[in-house]
Amino acid sequence: MISRVLAADVPAHIGARIRVAGWVHRRRELKSVTFLVIRDRSGLVQIVLPESDVPEETVVEVEGVVIASVQAPGGAEITEPVVTPLSEPAQAPPFDLYRPNLNATLPTILDNAPVALRHPKARAAFTITAASVAGYRAALDEMSFTEIHTPKIVETATESGATVFGIDYFGRRAYLAQSPQFFKQSLVGVFERVYEVGPVFRAEPHDTTRHLAQYTSLDAELGFITDHHDVMAVLRKAIAGMVGSVKTRAVKALNLLEIRLPEVPEIIPEVHFTDALELVGAPADEPDLAPAHERALSEWAMSEHGSEFLFVTGYPMRKRPFYTHPDPARPGHSNSFDLLFRGVELVTGGQRLHRYSDYLAVLQDPEPYRGYLDAFKHGMPPHGGFALGLERWTARLVDAPNIRQTTLFPRDLTRLSP
Amino acid sequence: MISRVLAADVPAHIGARIRVAGWVHRRRELKSVTFLVIRDRSGLVQIVLPESDVPEETVVEVEGVVIASVQAPGGAEITEPVVTPLSEPAQAPPFDLYRPNLNATLPTILDNAPVALRHPKARAAFTITAASVAGYRAALDEMSFTEIHTPKIVETATESGATVFGIDYFGRRAYLAQSPQFFKQSLVGVFERVYEVGPVFRAEPHDTTRHLAQYTSLDAELGFITDHHDVMAVLRKAIAGMVGSVKTRAVKALNLLEIRLPEVPEIIPEVHFTDALELVGAPADEPDLAPAHERALSEWAMSEHGSEFLFVTGYPMRKRPFYTHPDPARPGHSNSFDLLFRGVELVTGGQRLHRYSDYLAVLQDPEPYRGYLDAFKHGMPPHGGFALGLERWTARLVDAPNIRQTTLFPRDLTRLSP
Repeated sequence: MISRVLAADVPAHIGARIRVAGWVHRRRELKSVTFLVIRDRSGLVQIVLPESDVPEETVVEVEGVVIASVQAPGGAEITEPVVTPLSEPAQAPPFDLYRPNLNATLPTILDNAPVALRHPKARAAFTITAASVAGYRAALDEMSFTEIHTPKIVETATESGATVFGIDYFGRRAYLAQSPQFFKQSLVGVFERVYEVGPVFRAEPHDTTRHLAQYTSLDAELGFITDHHDVMAVLRKAIAGMVGSVKTRAVKALNLLEIRLPEVPEIIPEVHFTDALELVGAPADEPDLAPAHERALSEWAMSEHGSEFLFVTGYPMRKRPFYTHPDPARPGHSNSFDLLFRGVELVTGGQRLHRYSDYLAVLQDPEPYRGYLDAFKHGMPPHGGFALGLERWTARLVDAPNIRQTTLFPRDLTRLSP
Repeated sequence: MISRVLAADVPAHIGARIRVAGWVHRRRELKSVTFLVIRDRSGLVQIVLPESDVPEETVVEVEGVVIASVQAPGGAEITEPVVTPLSEPAQAPPFDLYRPNLNATLPTILDNAPVALRHPKARAAFTITAASVAGYRAALDEMSFTEIHTPKIVETATESGATVFGIDYFGRRAYLAQSPQFFKQSLVGVFERVYEVGPVFRAEPHDTTRHLAQYTSLDAELGFITDHHDVMAVLRKAIAGMVGSVKTRAVKALNLLEIRLPEVPEIIPEVHFTDALELVGAPADEPDLAPAHERALSEWAMSEHGSEFLFVTGYPMRKRPFYTHPDPARPGHSNSFDLLFRGVELVTGGQRLHRYSDYLAVLQDPEPYRGYLDAFKHGMPPHGGFALGLERWTARLVDAPNIRQTTLFPRDLTRLSP
């Protein structure tokens, strides 16, 4: 059997007899001729034959001769074909995959995700996701971080009891980890610099366009820092790595979705939380930024600094988790940051407490945190880290209004399948 | 402040005043002089000073002058030091981290994982793990696979109801995914070739040295195959990539643990299940291989083929999951394989059913599988894949008798913390 040629490579074989394989993306029957457009992982190729009754989405193998054709995609098409089905005749999807856009409601798309994701534009977002993660890892590897894999089943509902999923663990109560926070901090004591790409779980009781019950968190943590600015410098490199990787590894997806990638400035502009409140005209005693504030700040960063990224630093201690390091110079404020990107909070991070006595002082009952605190009892350097939501990143890159559009199989308040 | 030099780079700075930072690995007090050995992510460096009471594991920063010293590790040491603690004086760990080996029982080591993992030999295993995963991804990226991230919370206890963890999902019953099997198959319909590195969950009721409640699964799935041999060829490349990456990225760990890496033959030897039974002298009607059989087969592969890897193919259909593709030529047998490595099953894989009607024929009640079956209803190519247990891989590489030694924070029947 002659070896398979990918659709995108067909124009390089004009005059030759080749074999392609893929899904029947589109069947167009004219009076005396039928066109089959075949879709594979590389793109589309047109087949010309007298007639065909193979339904769209059926998987076929085609042997035929390549000829130049100005009207065909890529400037070539396959004639004199022998079409062999590899699957049964496919049932028609509830939407046309061959149209430029998926014309269906979001619930219909999500209910039919295995087939909706085949649409070239739906699929393209996940090519960008994969390229982003590859760039993230490469950037951190370059800075001598070690990749880790930590437990997703934990004994203690750690960061906030209200939004955690309970598990029956061999007859005991356990929880799904909301983040690898405690593990990555402990492992700074082992590797100094660690990262993890993995699922995190939040029993979010709200139905929003930017929260899910499971998402992919890009976590990092590093030791021997002076303060949160060292963490921000690492994050800046990680994001530059992500953008660079998308630029080189996801060229087709970028073109198909007509995406404009952001510039990552050498120094991402930074504004202190108190100044941020003032900029958006919020009362000085607001403890956090509302979504509208984040949008306004992003606009300000663009007009003032020409940057799509903005660090907001120094969030009030009372709105950050117990392990947050205070700002020694500004009582009530912390050595923490959020990174805003195109109007939303993309990353949360900061310096953490590293002295055992500091943890004992902030934890009312240290007993549930015994395993975690062990690391600090036995010596930990000043350290900090961050967490970036992967699906949210891609949503902003491709301008998807709902995070479900950049999640393969989203999980939320009502959705548990497919 | 002068910038930090890593311990391993100190010998390159003889005569200079430098700054190092790390943990006090070892303090040796002689009559008139004290040696502090400092450990950082790169290695060890010796400090000489008149006296010091800094306890071991305390984190310190040291400024001093580098001199050549034949007795010191790396041939250099730091004199005239100014030692500044970065943590509180550390409490003593329940074992000495400076000894060549961790002299403690496995339960003590696991109970104190955050500090036990700091031992250079404990840590080294996880450097090898990280290098392995990087090699796995690079090999699959090279073969144009797309990385995916799939749900760990699922509606249906899919592969075997007995070993699944239940979750309370917003008042509904849900389960932790035992594998990304259904998702990766569905996504062959989208990307043709996919892989995932992520946690999988098994409520294993047995306490063994090679099973855990959570482990890291390296999954892959690819379409347009002829049969399981195409999958085995991809797996062979993935494993060669892993070994190659360990060889280049984990040199220090390999030397420290005195590891002999396996050769990955161009063609990994293969034996059919029925012949395997005969080779180990088991009755011809045995439905599966016992651990002792796997050990015997590995020995046979070494003596007969000089290979530490062996494919066993054609397992009986009745012992494989419902989505397994039968061998058209041998009734009762399947187009499946296991890969044995150094006496244990490391990988399970095979060709899957790809016709909708085949699934309807094997599933007694297709309703719980509706979302999964959608992919097949709308056309799927012949495909197959595999899953490799990451912790088991490293355990065999470093010759760890218990998989808990190559898992950062293991989860089992009794262990849920740290």
